[in-house]
Amino acid sequence: MSRDLLALALPSVQELSPYVPGKPVEELARELGLQPEAIVKLASNENPLGPSPKVTAAISQALPELTRYPDGSGFILKDKLAAHYAVDPNQITLGNGSNDILELIARAWLAPGRNAIFSAHAFAVYPIATLASGAQCREVPAKDYGHDLDAMAAAIDSNTRVIFIANPNNPTGTWFDQAALNAFLAKVPSDVLVVLDEAYIEYAADSDLPDGMAYLSRYPNLLVSRTFSKAYGLAALRVGYAVSSLEVADILNRVRQPFNVNSLALVAACAALEDNDYLERSRLLNSQGMQQLEAGFKQLGLSWLPSRGNFIAVDFKRDAAPINQALLEQGVIVRPVAGYAMPTFLRVSIGTSNENQRFLDVLTSVLKQA
Amino acid sequence: MSRDLLALALPSVQELSPYVPGKPVEELARELGLQPEAIVKLASNENPLGPSPKVTAAISQALPELTRYPDGSGFILKDKLAAHYAVDPNQITLGNGSNDILELIARAWLAPGRNAIFSAHAFAVYPIATLASGAQCREVPAKDYGHDLDAMAAAIDSNTRVIFIANPNNPTGTWFDQAALNAFLAKVPSDVLVVLDEAYIEYAADSDLPDGMAYLSRYPNLLVSRTFSKAYGLAALRVGYAVSSLEVADILNRVRQPFNVNSLALVAACAALEDNDYLERSRLLNSQGMQQLEAGFKQLGLSWLPSRGNFIAVDFKRDAAPINQALLEQGVIVRPVAGYAMPTFLRVSIGTSNENQRFLDVLTSVLKQA
Repeated sequence: MSRDLLALALPSVQELSPYVPGKPVEELARELGLQPEAIVKLASNENPLGPSPKVTAAISQALPELTRYPDGSGFILKDKLAAHYAVDPNQITLGNGSNDILELIARAWLAPGRNAIFSAHAFAVYPIATLASGAQCREVPAKDYGHDLDAMAAAIDSNTRVIFIANPNNPTGTWFDQAALNAFLAKVPSDVLVVLDEAYIEYAADSDLPDGMAYLSRYPNLLVSRTFSKAYGLAALRVGYAVSSLEVADILNRVRQPFNVNSLALVAACAALEDNDYLERSRLLNSQGMQQLEAGFKQLGLSWLPSRGNFIAVDFKRDAAPINQALLEQGVIVRPVAGYAMPTFLRVSIGTSNENQRFLDVLTSVLKQA
Repeated sequence: MSRDLLALALPSVQELSPYVPGKPVEELARELGLQPEAIVKLASNENPLGPSPKVTAAISQALPELTRYPDGSGFILKDKLAAHYAVDPNQITLGNGSNDILELIARAWLAPGRNAIFSAHAFAVYPIATLASGAQCREVPAKDYGHDLDAMAAAIDSNTRVIFIANPNNPTGTWFDQAALNAFLAKVPSDVLVVLDEAYIEYAADSDLPDGMAYLSRYPNLLVSRTFSKAYGLAALRVGYAVSSLEVADILNRVRQPFNVNSLALVAACAALEDNDYLERSRLLNSQGMQQLEAGFKQLGLSWLPSRGNFIAVDFKRDAAPINQALLEQGVIVRPVAGYAMPTFLRVSIGTSNENQRFLDVLTSVLKQA
């Protein structure tokens, strides 16, 4: 092997550590020699409801066209999203998951000599996308595990091009209200792009969380990122989107791969967007499951971060790695968050009532043995 | 709108013109007020056979898992590909189409001050990916519309990091043989990555084209790119892959988005790889269609470039744009290639016998009226 060829990869890429996803069920099953059915996975903030029948029907209908390229413009999905949010279709950028949206932003605005700001304990893809572009990461310490928006605004300098904020935030579940967002946006210079990541916003309906879409007309430097992976139940299919000014969308669409969202993902997202019943059931299952987990944690004398997402970060006040390992050995997958500087926490996705109970039962026995 | 924010997007991105895909059937139908069924699309080198029943069955089986994230490592598909080509699974990088593979290469090895070499009349994504990374494009003039490999090797300088070569080449259909590839690889320094794009290689089986996979062990700076979009009939699903040295694959997997290939695409590709019957039927339909189109062109007194792909570039020896427009107005979509410096040509994908005949009939009437 030519060492030269490897040494000549860009320095930013050589230093990159890829994102570590939740352990797949099949992988744990292979390792432990278990049946996949015996495993409970509450590790990736997936929707426990299973797919919407309207979505699976739409996919089945589209199968005869598998040999055709996707519509690279995403015409129909963008049209439906535009109607849903009362925006222009050209304000929308489709992504292969919102991960893709975050990377498009980094590719368009970040480079060596520039920097991006994000909070401690925020989504791992913010630093990954920033580092991959060769830009500098400015991580701002959190306040009670949530975003310190004042400190984030104060961290802006002349080389800052992007600020990533998440509401609610993953993996902490923390959130900020309208007054806080108002005050923050008023402070950010108009030449800095504010990326408001609302991947979990559908779970926070009827709460004090601001709706990012309502701010777009006032702040042309605001971009709202959303996804079909969570409340809409399409994690397998990778559909995210950004809504922004026309001009920002035009830039992002230039770096977007022409067929970044595949055909089945496009038709599934169209069907999901119109399935209000599924969305309502997702929210209900989530709020019931949240109560169930909180009650269980209370009974075990554990503390946790109140969450507006579909997950909850529970604090064991000691190294959580052995607890995680003991859970895995009994077929329960949750997410360690030591990589988010939260080594005493585990992040637990809300599952079905049965899945939540299984997790609580196994956790109870693990804590007794410890 | 803040002009500043737009002006601060990277210069390479501001200058970028996105890839222009073949016109979707639905778009032409909307424009002309036609039924989609009345339109023949021979514009995107798609497989006219329709999907493999084994593929659609595999997708249907996977639908209950739509709420789960894809296996980010692509464990099963990489395992099957590794067995198919007798390589290590860790030599494989999966892409959201081979477009994604080409971009990963550019992101890892290209940047301002570096350059990439490719041929005139080669795939548009080579310059797009190069320009997006801020690197310089070195386009080498073609010889009889095919790659001039000697001239390409001679164009290498100390800033060259990547050479893209395609065999067969799109949109010309031209190819090079084993002796030419041997001579070329011997000349390329080991610190320059050779990207051998074999998107159409399955159509050239039993011919004098080299099999790129057979060169990997001798040339650690060689990467072979392939796709499920053409002979395997999965254009809708976006699955491409690179096979390379372990070290090159490790670099590419660092810049790869963790879930770049979605779950249905993964299961479909696994099923497609094992469906030899479908592959054989694809090849047969293609060679029959190629003969049909060549006979038709001969009868019309037209010349064309002999092709080893699933498409053929026909030369009208005058501006082909009006001919393309007249074809469109009669519901026949082929691909203009003026953007490939071939303004007198149209690229026609091989369709079913009926589609080819419809195209030839409409072309005959268009040429009579002209």
